[in-house]
Amino acid sequence: MTQPATTPLQAVANSIRVLAMDAVQKANSGHPGLPLGMADTAAVLWAKYLKFDPRQPQWPDRDRFILSAGHGSMLLYALLHLSGYDLPLAQLQQFRQWGSHTPGHPEYGETPGVETTTGPLGQGISNAVGFALAEQWLAAKFNRPDFPLVDHRTFVIASDGDLMEGVSHEACALAGHLGLGKLIVLYDDNGISIDGSTKLAFTEDVPARFAAYGWRVARVDGHDRTAVAAAIDAALTDAERPSLIACRTTIGYGSPNRAGTAKAHGEPLGAEEIRLTKEALGVPQEPFWVDPQAYEILGTAGSKGAQRHEAWRDLLALYEVAYPDLAAEFKRVMAGELPPNWQETPMPAFSSAMATRAASGQVLNVLATAVPELLGGSADLTGSNNTDLKGAADVQKGAFDGRYLRFGVREHGMGAIMNGMALHGGVIPYGGTFLVFSDYMRGAVRLAALMRQQVIYVFTHDSIGLGEDGPTHQPIEHLAALRAIPNLWVFRPADAWETAVAWQVALARRDGPTALALTRQKLPLLDRDAAQGAAQGGYVLADAADPQVILMGSGSEVQIALAAQALLADKGVAARVVSLPCWELFKAQPQAYRDAVLPPAITARVAIEAGVTLGWEQFVGTQGKVLGLEHFGASAPYERLYQEFGLTAEAMAAAIGNW
Amino acid sequence: MTQPATTPLQAVANSIRVLAMDAVQKANSGHPGLPLGMADTAAVLWAKYLKFDPRQPQWPDRDRFILSAGHGSMLLYALLHLSGYDLPLAQLQQFRQWGSHTPGHPEYGETPGVETTTGPLGQGISNAVGFALAEQWLAAKFNRPDFPLVDHRTFVIASDGDLMEGVSHEACALAGHLGLGKLIVLYDDNGISIDGSTKLAFTEDVPARFAAYGWRVARVDGHDRTAVAAAIDAALTDAERPSLIACRTTIGYGSPNRAGTAKAHGEPLGAEEIRLTKEALGVPQEPFWVDPQAYEILGTAGSKGAQRHEAWRDLLALYEVAYPDLAAEFKRVMAGELPPNWQETPMPAFSSAMATRAASGQVLNVLATAVPELLGGSADLTGSNNTDLKGAADVQKGAFDGRYLRFGVREHGMGAIMNGMALHGGVIPYGGTFLVFSDYMRGAVRLAALMRQQVIYVFTHDSIGLGEDGPTHQPIEHLAALRAIPNLWVFRPADAWETAVAWQVALARRDGPTALALTRQKLPLLDRDAAQGAAQGGYVLADAADPQVILMGSGSEVQIALAAQALLADKGVAARVVSLPCWELFKAQPQAYRDAVLPPAITARVAIEAGVTLGWEQFVGTQGKVLGLEHFGASAPYERLYQEFGLTAEAMAAAIGNW
Repeated sequence: MTQPATTPLQAVANSIRVLAMDAVQKANSGHPGLPLGMADTAAVLWAKYLKFDPRQPQWPDRDRFILSAGHGSMLLYALLHLSGYDLPLAQLQQFRQWGSHTPGHPEYGETPGVETTTGPLGQGISNAVGFALAEQWLAAKFNRPDFPLVDHRTFVIASDGDLMEGVSHEACALAGHLGLGKLIVLYDDNGISIDGSTKLAFTEDVPARFAAYGWRVARVDGHDRTAVAAAIDAALTDAERPSLIACRTTIGYGSPNRAGTAKAHGEPLGAEEIRLTKEALGVPQEPFWVDPQAYEILGTAGSKGAQRHEAWRDLLALYEVAYPDLAAEFKRVMAGELPPNWQETPMPAFSSAMATRAASGQVLNVLATAVPELLGGSADLTGSNNTDLKGAADVQKGAFDGRYLRFGVREHGMGAIMNGMALHGGVIPYGGTFLVFSDYMRGAVRLAALMRQQVIYVFTHDSIGLGEDGPTHQPIEHLAALRAIPNLWVFRPADAWETAVAWQVALARRDGPTALALTRQKLPLLDRDAAQGAAQGGYVLADAADPQVILMGSGSEVQIALAAQALLADKGVAARVVSLPCWELFKAQPQAYRDAVLPPAITARVAIEAGVTLGWEQFVGTQGKVLGLEHFGASAPYERLYQEFGLTAEAMAAAIGNW
Repeated sequence: MTQPATTPLQAVANSIRVLAMDAVQKANSGHPGLPLGMADTAAVLWAKYLKFDPRQPQWPDRDRFILSAGHGSMLLYALLHLSGYDLPLAQLQQFRQWGSHTPGHPEYGETPGVETTTGPLGQGISNAVGFALAEQWLAAKFNRPDFPLVDHRTFVIASDGDLMEGVSHEACALAGHLGLGKLIVLYDDNGISIDGSTKLAFTEDVPARFAAYGWRVARVDGHDRTAVAAAIDAALTDAERPSLIACRTTIGYGSPNRAGTAKAHGEPLGAEEIRLTKEALGVPQEPFWVDPQAYEILGTAGSKGAQRHEAWRDLLALYEVAYPDLAAEFKRVMAGELPPNWQETPMPAFSSAMATRAASGQVLNVLATAVPELLGGSADLTGSNNTDLKGAADVQKGAFDGRYLRFGVREHGMGAIMNGMALHGGVIPYGGTFLVFSDYMRGAVRLAALMRQQVIYVFTHDSIGLGEDGPTHQPIEHLAALRAIPNLWVFRPADAWETAVAWQVALARRDGPTALALTRQKLPLLDRDAAQGAAQGGYVLADAADPQVILMGSGSEVQIALAAQALLADKGVAARVVSLPCWELFKAQPQAYRDAVLPPAITARVAIEAGVTLGWEQFVGTQGKVLGLEHFGASAPYERLYQEFGLTAEAMAAAIGNW
């Protein structure tokens, strides 16, 4: 085995290539093409630019590195390993195996140094916009002259696929609008996607498109490490424009028979081709071989980062002296702690019927004062979603000290940006749109749930109750579809008081996302004390002595259940009304509590919700009935729709009567 | 009341304005801003360019007009009314009311002349790409020298919101790639979105972006009718590039106090402002007043269209003589009829275990020969989705006689384009991606279901059975989330034979979309004859004499149920195995059939599916059990995942044992 003569950067690149092709081969599964192709570019970035402390990957002021093209996970794992993160070679050898820290796609929380879960294309680059936005916002909030406490960049490696996805359009257009100058995207312009040449489907002029968004753009040979460095240097000088560097590369670089072909993308090279590739690269055949120079140069980068971390800690110590209150606040928000006593914040004193979206707006305004890290906005439906903060300025280019985000008509981008904000830390993101358009952002909602990030969705216009806008805007299946997502809490309050509880639950929940489903139409107030039961997800709202039947529902339909209870009482039937605003929370209660709310002995049960009935069977039982809608809505005033579709107290009472 | 002196085009524009503002006012709900702003541009298009026959709106060679900004529905209803479609003034006066043909947003099938349902932003413009693609494909297939049987354009009015949405990026980038020269988009560049000025969130250079996609672009004053006409004339000359004409307009044009503001967008102007607006426009105060010149000029346009329709019928008659077979085929596909005897097409002779995605590929290849109007592709996962047609050429720019579509990594765009293709008629679209990415395209899937369009989704990699790619790629909640959509059929076959049935069902279903959920991993073959029961959505796959329990499931988990049946038999428990590949179809069967498959007397039931259990309660009953996954998956070989997550025959048998 001869030690080839190489430069340190070449050593890094070739070591990445060896680790990637060998790990994929050993797993007999994975994607060698991107790591081989982007190894040179990544080597330059990590060795010369990226600010990181491998032993303390949670350092708040580290640069963020996001592999948006998550299928190239071995590139990232190789870099983390070579740089001294707690990811031994043995882990790389367990790539894609049960219990390893090297899953098929990078997963946040599974591997030190992985900043976000990627793989679904377009998400990582869109998360990055959220990271960069959070950085700028926190910098505006906490930095003081001579105290650049928050001063880091967000680097991304993105693929053709990322840029074809619509979510990348949404997020990157907004990044250009906001002038997020500390966001730098290295685009792996390799001319190949899974089906073959990008000439098959993807011939847009990517730099021209990004220039149209207001980005700085450049094109380089991604294997020319000097040129890559020069392009990054240039990008660093532009504080007002995000940068796209299109790096022309060869997918599967080094593989004599697969380089430059789709075949290199997503399957092991095979033993013989690996042999040939190693030969071509001039590296030893030894499996999982690493050039010692690679450890050295990336280790040095890590040590330098650790020193910068140390210097940053010193800066923070001085900052604590100079600005003790700010420093305490900074440490609190970066630790992900809510302000002490925030839960004692007095809620608005609701006194009359109101839409839950309106109640949400009032509650949000109260809580945003108590919890200054709440940062959000709406996908261009501010007045409809009631997401605005009274008197708050917008966050805009060069004015990051605002408090309100204008996401534009970009639901999916909003979702992915919120994920990035939450992952960055220091902020709790919320975002509003119509419930029906939760469909547009499911790709991002799912990842919030998978990554257990605290993101709050303000979904208004939550049923046919929105009326005249008709079936395109009336959610029917959306509550069910959201409830299907593991780890997402879906909260559909029945009045203003329950809405206040919903917000409190959502804020208190640090380990996952919460979706609020809110009405456009007014709803009468429930009993304030009773409504506190919403904190258990479901509760007895209005009981009868010795109830024979249970009526249940969520949101606006709880009023119908109450009216049905009265109708039944007139006929001598004692009915209990249960409000079930949040299934997930209710199901997490002890069995004894659930049985107290829904006594197994009472099998005469009717549920009502203005949507598909899917899932309600679990609460009403086989003998129970569910009034819902198994079809789309219609355009008309909402009172008419409820009548026409049979969602009435009379129908609910009759469902019991016809038992 | 004085009759103002106007040009005919001005008369059209002002009549649109009057009808729009009065209808919105009467409904006390709706969006006057766009109709007022785009009235001039639309007047030019309809009076001078659009080819339509108002009394025969189904004429196959009509131009398609798509109001992507569907909230401006009164613009479209006004144009349809003025042009002589069967939409009397009384209907406009019933705007947004129960039972009217003038719903809040344009709905396909509700109103003559409405080509697609719009409102959810980005969908219409993306549908339009599908319309234009279908036109080109059919032209390549059916046109012959001197017989331009298929020769029409697709015109779109799109808004800022449409262009912010990611789906518009996906579809329009593909339109540029394909060089769909007969697609012309009039962009209502009014500088206003709901939140206020587009300066708040949308400052990209739209024409530059579209130029980067390969579009022809132009900018005009949208109130300068001569300039608009010149821009359309120029666009008509470019056969190889789609055109974007950015029409600078004033939202709410004519309203003295609301024009140019967000306030004009989505609420009635109010009686007093309407009075002032009519005054400013120089039109009478009379509600729903129409300038007779408007009826005249648009009536003339309609008559001209009817004459062109007549000429086209003559052309078709000659074509029938010259090309009788082609003519018969053309009439068949445009009538939406499947080839006679297509259902007798012999299915592949499966003989060994195979993935259902592989079986799907074989079935598709057989059916595509029998049904030449099947036209589809994949979102860059051709080899994984098995969507390719052997030996078929790609549909590409200037080569529309191909048979395979390269959608690129554009799931949402693919969904919306397929909707447009189906709505155009003459083709049956199918498109593939991973099941997990059905999330990315739900906005379009929902509209296919709402519009009852035949679109076939080939969703492969349908569970944790895909293995190593891990939780980002493993659908968990997706079957439930798709089943929640009204009118969508979700078919998850358990083997190759059931897969053949699924495709037959999907093709036979002319009035709605079908989603096929298919495995990556191999599955043994079931009994061929038994598997035909899949056509009923659910059936007894393997019975026992006098069964005491029922085991049920879908897809790959049916094998686990069969193994559990054997385990139980060893213990003397007689179990029936029911395969339930398509809930919607099964629930549509007569009660007697369903009771025969799932006898109410047998309450000991266990279901298994590698996903959330939501909804299975309806089949197993309150006392039944469901083995599923209420959490995300993991990255590892799939056999290990099934073990670790307890989806095994042993666990299923034990669930009965623990009854």
